[in-house]
Amino acid sequence: MNVGGKHYRTIWLHPENQEIVQIIDQTKLPFQFEVVDLDSVKAVESAISDMLVRGAGLIGATAGFGMYLAAVNASEKDYVDECRAAATLLKKSRPTAVNLQWAVDRLLHIILLSTSKDECVKTTKEEALRIADEDADMCRQIGNNGLQLIKEISADKGEEPVNILTHCNAGWLAFVDHGSATAPIYASHDAGVKVHVWVDETRPRNQGARLTAWELQQHGVPHTVIPDNAGGHLMQHGMVDLVITGADRVTSRGDAANKIGTYLKALAAKANDIPFYVALPSSTFDWSMKDGVKEIPIEQRDGHEVRFMAGLLDEKEEEVMIVPSGSPVANYGFDVTPAELITGLITERGICEAESSAIKRLYYDKF
Amino acid sequence: MNVGGKHYRTIWLHPENQEIVQIIDQTKLPFQFEVVDLDSVKAVESAISDMLVRGAGLIGATAGFGMYLAAVNASEKDYVDECRAAATLLKKSRPTAVNLQWAVDRLLHIILLSTSKDECVKTTKEEALRIADEDADMCRQIGNNGLQLIKEISADKGEEPVNILTHCNAGWLAFVDHGSATAPIYASHDAGVKVHVWVDETRPRNQGARLTAWELQQHGVPHTVIPDNAGGHLMQHGMVDLVITGADRVTSRGDAANKIGTYLKALAAKANDIPFYVALPSSTFDWSMKDGVKEIPIEQRDGHEVRFMAGLLDEKEEEVMIVPSGSPVANYGFDVTPAELITGLITERGICEAESSAIKRLYYDKF
Repeated sequence: MNVGGKHYRTIWLHPENQEIVQIIDQTKLPFQFEVVDLDSVKAVESAISDMLVRGAGLIGATAGFGMYLAAVNASEKDYVDECRAAATLLKKSRPTAVNLQWAVDRLLHIILLSTSKDECVKTTKEEALRIADEDADMCRQIGNNGLQLIKEISADKGEEPVNILTHCNAGWLAFVDHGSATAPIYASHDAGVKVHVWVDETRPRNQGARLTAWELQQHGVPHTVIPDNAGGHLMQHGMVDLVITGADRVTSRGDAANKIGTYLKALAAKANDIPFYVALPSSTFDWSMKDGVKEIPIEQRDGHEVRFMAGLLDEKEEEVMIVPSGSPVANYGFDVTPAELITGLITERGICEAESSAIKRLYYDKF
Repeated sequence: MNVGGKHYRTIWLHPENQEIVQIIDQTKLPFQFEVVDLDSVKAVESAISDMLVRGAGLIGATAGFGMYLAAVNASEKDYVDECRAAATLLKKSRPTAVNLQWAVDRLLHIILLSTSKDECVKTTKEEALRIADEDADMCRQIGNNGLQLIKEISADKGEEPVNILTHCNAGWLAFVDHGSATAPIYASHDAGVKVHVWVDETRPRNQGARLTAWELQQHGVPHTVIPDNAGGHLMQHGMVDLVITGADRVTSRGDAANKIGTYLKALAAKANDIPFYVALPSSTFDWSMKDGVKEIPIEQRDGHEVRFMAGLLDEKEEEVMIVPSGSPVANYGFDVTPAELITGLITERGICEAESSAIKRLYYDKF
């Protein structure tokens, strides 16, 4: 998508030196836009573990490029063993990221098939670029599928924009391009369909206010940041036409784990007859699970995120304490929205109801 | 309630000089506990308009004391006219506070009945103290009524505490003592009934994290501060036994306007079969309204509250910017919870269902 009028992906090869990978340091957003050069496995490992890059799709793509850099920097003689060590290192950088394990293994397979270091560098580069392209294509396809949905709503709204509420950042910053929840929004905006996005700030880490707002602003999509508390009121008063969120994990019957607070918006959407969609690449399905509320483990994160708030003060990012020090805090990372609250799932394969048999029809090959 | 082991109300006469009114500067909480002397109408007017005191009950009581100070500082000759001018000034300090208008008029009535300045000082002092006592008594009675409810839940929980979720600050800081939503909590804690409170931080002004957490901590009530996003997840997993919130306005059929985000918690409580109560003094009813969603006007507040966050940095309170400057924000102050989501109303008269005929039975004298 665009940043300052120029097209960017979230990861790419340095235009003048193809042995350097470039990323956006997302920890500095939205107050600073900084491109960082990665020239070693160690640099890639830090970028992932320090969350300069985040989001399932982008973590996978970054790990792929990490394995390419491992090949670039390996010795002629021991390149296979060195790449194996790199794989072990990279897999530890975010142990719970499924896409990371998958991308590293995919590259390792290519490395094992190679017969020389030179061939290995060439094939790992191609494969890393392929993973990035696949991720961007998949998101674009999610966007195209969601676009139809938004066009239909827009047809009833005349000159008024379609008001879409989203929670957290399932944006292009979390993937290689387009995003999941944001893909239909960008596709609509680019196709001239009028949209306006209500951006939940998404406490405690404020990914909505920091990342989604910044993305939409850079791409020129009309939007308004709201406290997480406001969505119910907006829906009650006809100010939301559609909710689209991303997901961290979706079960085979369509229950969706996503950032804490998503469930409250789904309840409000249901109560006010507003369509609630979850956008996801197929890799987000966990076919081994059915009942999301019972089966999906919910991570408890560090209380620091609740107790402190980061923001800009005198041109510098600072953290202020917002809870009195004697009061305990709790920080649940995700919640689960039961399938019955979800109108549909927007995937790269198409849109389906959040319900076992509909999901089975779209994913007949997975059962 | 207690602060540092000592009993306090939110407003009182200086023990050594009864012509000075003392309050707690609530803008400095929770990071600083500062008692402020008010010795003139002007000082009272600033304390109200600058929100050193806030909350319906406390604003009313403060205005009463303001009129007493007007009498104290008036001339022998023109004390009635001077008190009239003070009344006009005070009424403008928070134009939408119904309790403020009511308390000022009540004191003005006393002033008009007096036959000398000395008598006026004596009777206004008595009346101002009476308003404060009435407010505290009313809240204690709300507490006693709510206590029965919590005792019943506690009986089923054995040694486990009753987990109560609350939103915003309807605590003793908003009244003269006890609070509305917190009154049943304090009454239970003081009666030895085990309670634990989930405190919604309540973005954007964070009255939960700043005020409710501080109050509960000072009084020794076990509690945990959570982001507003967390309540649905907690309810889904059996971690909430009861929700109690305050209200800014309740219609004759029981629809309740309260701090933005209350509605989302009411939806989650309903979906998970958790009792949802609104605690309020009778003065909060607006007998002229029925359909709260349609009729209650919702104030839009300054976007600054959404864009910036105040907190402690190096022992000093600072504000950091948390939304990129190019992104618009919206700040709706309240939302309306429809009566069908409310299990009951806890008032000083007793508990009743949030439904026209039940409310009429308890308030037969108002119809």
